[in-house]
This record gives sequence, structure tokens and C-alpha cells, in this order.
Amino acid sequence: MSKKVAIILSGCGVFDGAEINETVLTALSLDQHGAKVEFFAPDIKQAAVINHQTNEPMDEQRNVLVESGRITRGKSRDVRELQAADFDALILPGGFGVASNLSDFASKGADCTVQADTLQAILQFKEAKKPVGLICISPALSAKIYGAGVRCTIGNDESTAAVITQMGAQHENTSVDAIVVDETHRLVTTPAYMLTESLSEAAKGINKLVAQVLSMVK
Amino acid sequence: MSKKVAIILSGCGVFDGAEINETVLTALSLDQHGAKVEFFAPDIKQAAVINHQTNEPMDEQRNVLVESGRITRGKSRDVRELQAADFDALILPGGFGVASNLSDFASKGADCTVQADTLQAILQFKEAKKPVGLICISPALSAKIYGAGVRCTIGNDESTAAVITQMGAQHENTSVDAIVVDETHRLVTTPAYMLTESLSEAAKGINKLVAQVLSMVK
Repeated sequence: MSKKVAIILSGCGVFDGAEINETVLTALSLDQHGAKVEFFAPDIKQAAVINHQTNEPMDEQRNVLVESGRITRGKSRDVRELQAADFDALILPGGFGVASNLSDFASKGADCTVQADTLQAILQFKEAKKPVGLICISPALSAKIYGAGVRCTIGNDESTAAVITQMGAQHENTSVDAIVVDETHRLVTTPAYMLTESLSEAAKGINKLVAQVLSMVK
Repeated sequence: MSKKVAIILSGCGVFDGAEINETVLTALSLDQHGAKVEFFAPDIKQAAVINHQTNEPMDEQRNVLVESGRITRGKSRDVRELQAADFDALILPGGFGVASNLSDFASKGADCTVQADTLQAILQFKEAKKPVGLICISPALSAKIYGAGVRCTIGNDESTAAVITQMGAQHENTSVDAIVVDETHRLVTTPAYMLTESLSEAAKGINKLVAQVLSMVK
């Protein structure tokens, strides 16, 4: 039986949505392992639409679920339909959308909350003790999901790590090709584009994360 | 010295722009070969904006160059700046944007024309006898670039192949893991998502195309 993995996306594009390269690298690695993948995203308005060439806001409104369909070739599903019982594991790629659409970490820092539908979906995996992989900036939400003491990494960015520590998580500095495995909470994290602009470097950590998450499936 | 490869994108998303997975797979393979990559796109309005979840047109206007920056993390350049003298090779991923933004193949078929700035850039590589790789639907433009007799593949879709033949190219039916190499015209083509929905299958043909294109650099 193929293992089934859900991926939650936060849009389409690193500066206001899901990091595209991380998403494709994750899906590629899962496919190469023979795992089946389904994509989900919240059906909500994006917090912002950013011109990725200028990094300036655009006077537009876009929907997180609809835009995530650009990466998934129209195959994204509303995260409210995500049932952990149907999957063996969950992975969240990074991108600023994690900090602005899936949560308000970007504006609220340690006082952030996770988007309700997204949190409800993720907590199902926690409660079922199914492994979860968080990539890039996604591990910033670790304490909001697992509570104080959870171990994770976003690489070595001091200010982000300080906020993560303030939230109660134990941040570990790592390199781009490394993962942090919290066996107790069944959480795997890797820095990816928090620490590189290179696809093949990002792939090293993401491939390790995918292999580890799949190995933790019971 | 690293080989330098230009990639021309047609937007961001398979139904109105560049196929995202093909783009990332191409860039990943090039990076793994140690090649340096730069991205280009025409600074023009998209022919359409398609809701990728419903496949219906949206009442919006988006710019091909700006949207392509979502894949490239803001690193796309206007295709008018592309000088073949600065690069060893050129690759175009697929996506409906090739047939609607980089050309009007989708609406005009055999009578299509290639977007002027894009054609001017591609013809520089032809004239310099530098290798070009066309992926997915991009090979439909082969005859418009190289003239009658050029050999290429878009897989085995009969109606598309018939139009390509009508334009003067020699279409060869292939499988997703295959490439067609026209040594005379220094053109390499592969079907990718014309023949699969699987990332790891698409990667097989794209990895072969990238290796072949790089091997043809003089």
C-alpha cells in the first residue's frame, strides 16, 4: 500500500504564498518514494498580493486556495475537507504565506494565531500521532501546534529563532542539509530556503525530511 | 567555468502561464549539473487569467514577467534583455502560456506567430548555433523558429502533432521519458506533462533533455 501524504499550501509564490520550489521538491521526493500526495489550502483571501519582481504590494485580491491550484494543476482541496484518518502524514512547505495566510506570525510574532481551518486540520495529525514535516518558516508554528518544549529548526536566523523560543519551542540551529527530528512530538523540520537560494541545496534537506517523515509512518 | 543557461517563462501556472513543475524540474536539473540559470519572460499582459481550480477565466489582468517572478523568487528579467552571447544554451518549459502568451498557437494553430520579443531572443540562439531545449507544448513552435524539416516531439497527441506537421516540422511520437535530438538544428525536445501527471515521470524526460542540451554546449 502506498503511503498517503497531505500537503497544505498557503498560496503560490514565496512573498505572499507558498514557496513554489519547496512545494515541488517536496512533491517530487514523495513521488519518488512512491507516496501518494494530495494538496490542501484554506479557502480564504490572501493577506496581501505582492509583485514578486518589485516586492511591492499590488492593489488586488487573490484567494489562497485558488492560487495554490497553480502549483497543483487545479488539484487543491479546501483544507476543511482534510481528514487525518485518510492520510499517513502531513507536510507544510514554507513561503511568506505561512506567516501571513496560514497564520499571522509575520505581524504578531509570538502572539500569533494559526488560521482556524488550517489549525484544525494540523491538530488532527497531532492527535492521531501521525508524523508532520514543517519546512522553511513553517516550524515557527511548532509551539502553537505542539505546545512548549517542542524541538524544531528554521536554520540559524537569530531574530526568528528568538521569537520561536519566546513561544516556548526549543530552536536548534542547523544547516540547510539538516533536519531536526522531535521523536516525542513526531515532528520533523528543515530550513530549506531560510538558508539558501539554491534548489539543489534546498533539495538535500527536503529529501531528508521526506524520508524521515515517511519512515515514521506506522 | 559553469555553463550558463537562459530559461524563458510564460507566466506562472499551467493553464495560463508556465508549467510550474516543469520549470522547477528544469532548474533543479541544471543546478545539479552545476550550470548557472537566469530566467526571462516577456513584459506583456497575459492573454488570459485562469482560475486553476475551476479552469474558468477570471476578470483580471496579470503581467507575464511579473507573475513569472513567483517561480523565480523575483529574479525574472525582461526577455528583451536576453543576449545569447551571455549564455551557452536556452530552455523553454511548457504550460499553456507558451501557446497563449509566448505565441498565439492556441488560437491560430499552424498560422500562429511567436511573440516578437521572445522570438527575437530565441533566434539569437539559433543563429549562434547554441543548443535549445523545448519542453511539453513548447516544441509546437519549432517550425516557427527553425523552419521546415526540424525534428521534434510533443509526445503522441494526434491533433497537436498534425498541426505541428502542417507547420513543416517532423513530429516524432515518443514516451514521457524520451527526448528527440535534432543535431542539425541543435534542438532537443521532450513531452513532460503532455504525457503524464507524475512529477517523477516528467523528471525523467526533463533530466535527459537538460543533460543532452548541456552536452551540446561547445
